[in-house]
Amino acid sequence: MSNPSLLILPGDGIGPEVMAEVRRIIDWFGAKRDLAFDVSEDLVGGAAYDAHGTPLHDDTMARAQEADAVLLGAVGGPKYDDLDFSVKPERGLLRLRKEMDLFSNLRPAQCFDALADFSSLKRDVVSGLDIMIVRELTSGSYFGEPRGIFEENGERVGINTQRYTTSEIRRVARSAFELARRRGNKVCSMEKANVMESGILWREEVTWVHQNEYPDVELSHMYADAGAMQLCRWPKQFDVILTDNLFGDLLSDTAAMLTGSLGMLPSASLGAPMENGRPKALYEPVHGSAPDIAGQGKANPIACVLSFAMALRYSFDQGAEADRLEQAVERTLAAGARTGDLMGPEGGTPLSTSEMGDAILKEL
Amino acid sequence: MSNPSLLILPGDGIGPEVMAEVRRIIDWFGAKRDLAFDVSEDLVGGAAYDAHGTPLHDDTMARAQEADAVLLGAVGGPKYDDLDFSVKPERGLLRLRKEMDLFSNLRPAQCFDALADFSSLKRDVVSGLDIMIVRELTSGSYFGEPRGIFEENGERVGINTQRYTTSEIRRVARSAFELARRRGNKVCSMEKANVMESGILWREEVTWVHQNEYPDVELSHMYADAGAMQLCRWPKQFDVILTDNLFGDLLSDTAAMLTGSLGMLPSASLGAPMENGRPKALYEPVHGSAPDIAGQGKANPIACVLSFAMALRYSFDQGAEADRLEQAVERTLAAGARTGDLMGPEGGTPLSTSEMGDAILKEL
Ligand SMILES: CC(C)[C@H](C(=O)O)[C@@H](O)C(=O)O
Ligand SMILES: CC(C)[C@H](C(=O)O)[C@@H](O)C(=O)O
Repeated sequence: MSNPSLLILPGDGIGPEVMAEVRRIIDWFGAKRDLAFDVSEDLVGGAAYDAHGTPLHDDTMARAQEADAVLLGAVGGPKYDDLDFSVKPERGLLRLRKEMDLFSNLRPAQCFDALADFSSLKRDVVSGLDIMIVRELTSGSYFGEPRGIFEENGERVGINTQRYTTSEIRRVARSAFELARRRGNKVCSMEKANVMESGILWREEVTWVHQNEYPDVELSHMYADAGAMQLCRWPKQFDVILTDNLFGDLLSDTAAMLTGSLGMLPSASLGAPMENGRPKALYEPVHGSAPDIAGQGKANPIACVLSFAMALRYSFDQGAEADRLEQAVERTLAAGARTGDLMGPEGGTPLSTSEMGDAILKEL
Repeated sequence: MSNPSLLILPGDGIGPEVMAEVRRIIDWFGAKRDLAFDVSEDLVGGAAYDAHGTPLHDDTMARAQEADAVLLGAVGGPKYDDLDFSVKPERGLLRLRKEMDLFSNLRPAQCFDALADFSSLKRDVVSGLDIMIVRELTSGSYFGEPRGIFEENGERVGINTQRYTTSEIRRVARSAFELARRRGNKVCSMEKANVMESGILWREEVTWVHQNEYPDVELSHMYADAGAMQLCRWPKQFDVILTDNLFGDLLSDTAAMLTGSLGMLPSASLGAPMENGRPKALYEPVHGSAPDIAGQGKANPIACVLSFAMALRYSFDQGAEADRLEQAVERTLAAGARTGDLMGPEGGTPLSTSEMGDAILKEL
């Protein structure tokens, strides 16, 4: 039997640096845990634009469709700020999400005990925090038609369309309920049903899935503005948060910031099962391409390493190996290893990206 | 000359209780500062629905259009949860905003020194915080057409439309720049121009107003998800934040929560100048109707009192009197007066709503 395939898209900015450390960890799993992958690499974002004039080449898109899992670094940078909307680095990422139909975006917001003091929130508000945001990723205002900038009555008008169907809502809701069963068994769904009809439909369909398929899970509903508040006030009240594409964009960034561990947070974007039973899947850190420190060996590779751990868990059914990797990261942090972004008041000399890679490998 | 007119709409939940204290303060200004108002009252929200079967009667709408300023308490409550979307309490508020064309919603997020420890954020992150969110209030996803729930290919689809025109963006941008000039002279505009064309138009038109009319003000742009993050990380980097209706809903709630003073924050919703030069205006607390404590005399009236202070400043050009009232509130807090929502670890006996009113009047 051939090895499962991993397509690696390092992308822009710090993407290639952090991905280099992940490749060493992938190699370690091949050598020491008998978990070998067929790894190949390709371009996305600004790097793809520089090479091909498009942020995602059709060949790369085809390879992503074939791969058992895709691992992405980050896209974007000031160099590309003046590009036309249609070829901006972000379009490459959005095309991957849309064409692979990765409707369920899992964003864990976890506070590492060793880093609880890094949060701008008080320690007792965030320590031990472990919530999971499930964000719909292939519909809503990101993709709805009509969209664009038009002329009307002598002025311009900018239009986007928030649009959700029954089936789009139900499938992502199922994914949230499934996750909740393996966690704290609670889902809080967030929308603006008091103002938007798309929010009413969201609430009704989530309730339908709950009543008909997951009555054992505790479901609550919250307006998204109240949700943003409650995330800042007492985030530990949540277990799984289910929300749409646009609200999920803001709420997951808020949640990530709470933990004080932005450079540490991974994400998984999952689609429907393929023939081999694995979901289509793309894994990427929550952080961006950090152009200000790119190429300097300063970046923290942990978010990208933990994205690979999510791949082990959700694509390759290797939950125990994912635990092993996550625990190695925790031990590394507990032992005091810190990249520059994690320098607190206590000071010290920051590790480089590859030294952090060394430290994690040592703990493994 | 007749007195300026104030239409008071106490609304639901704690609205009537907190408004009763504001009326005493209005009377004080009439008696002691020679600032008399013609005050009248009417119904809005669930209270209007109970009386008339609609959350805003046409007569009330007409009176609001005529008033020099409207002061609103709060709308909504569980009693009305199952009402049809079209007659929910919120529709009354949204109709006032839309028909009075109150396009500029000012939401100050201020951290009262006496309350800095109430925030879930660390004291140094929030103490002295004083930012102003300017939220567009009459367009965007709240009002765009088409909207609704439709049948399509045998399933339901929920649709809302994000829609902004050149003139809608420019007028609210002007209002943000004007405010910035009287504050820290900085505006940060937030959208998702990396994903939404309406965000591109927003960014372009804000930039146009800046270059052509307010080049002396410092302008920056941020994606709304990054903005949500930065609000939690280091909110003091901001002076005025300018954003659209839907992002503004989430971001202003986040900002309000940071201050730890949710029961304390007022808002102003301003439209174009009327014949007498005053802007159309509605003032309301940021907090909701708090049905859980309604009718018990526990509510904190300060947000509503400070909303009246904003009315003095923005509708009646009485900046010095607004300062007087705001300073009286600060002294009241500094002297240790606390309603139940402000009970911290130090304990003590909470004041009732009317006792807090007494305390403020005493400081005046
Ligand atoms: C880079 C950008 C297109 C993207 C988004 O808006 O979804 C990012 O903010 C994210 O959250 O993954
Ligand atoms: C009550 C509701 C309609 C309203 C809104 O969504 O605008 C509220 O959340 C607000 O922020 O004023």
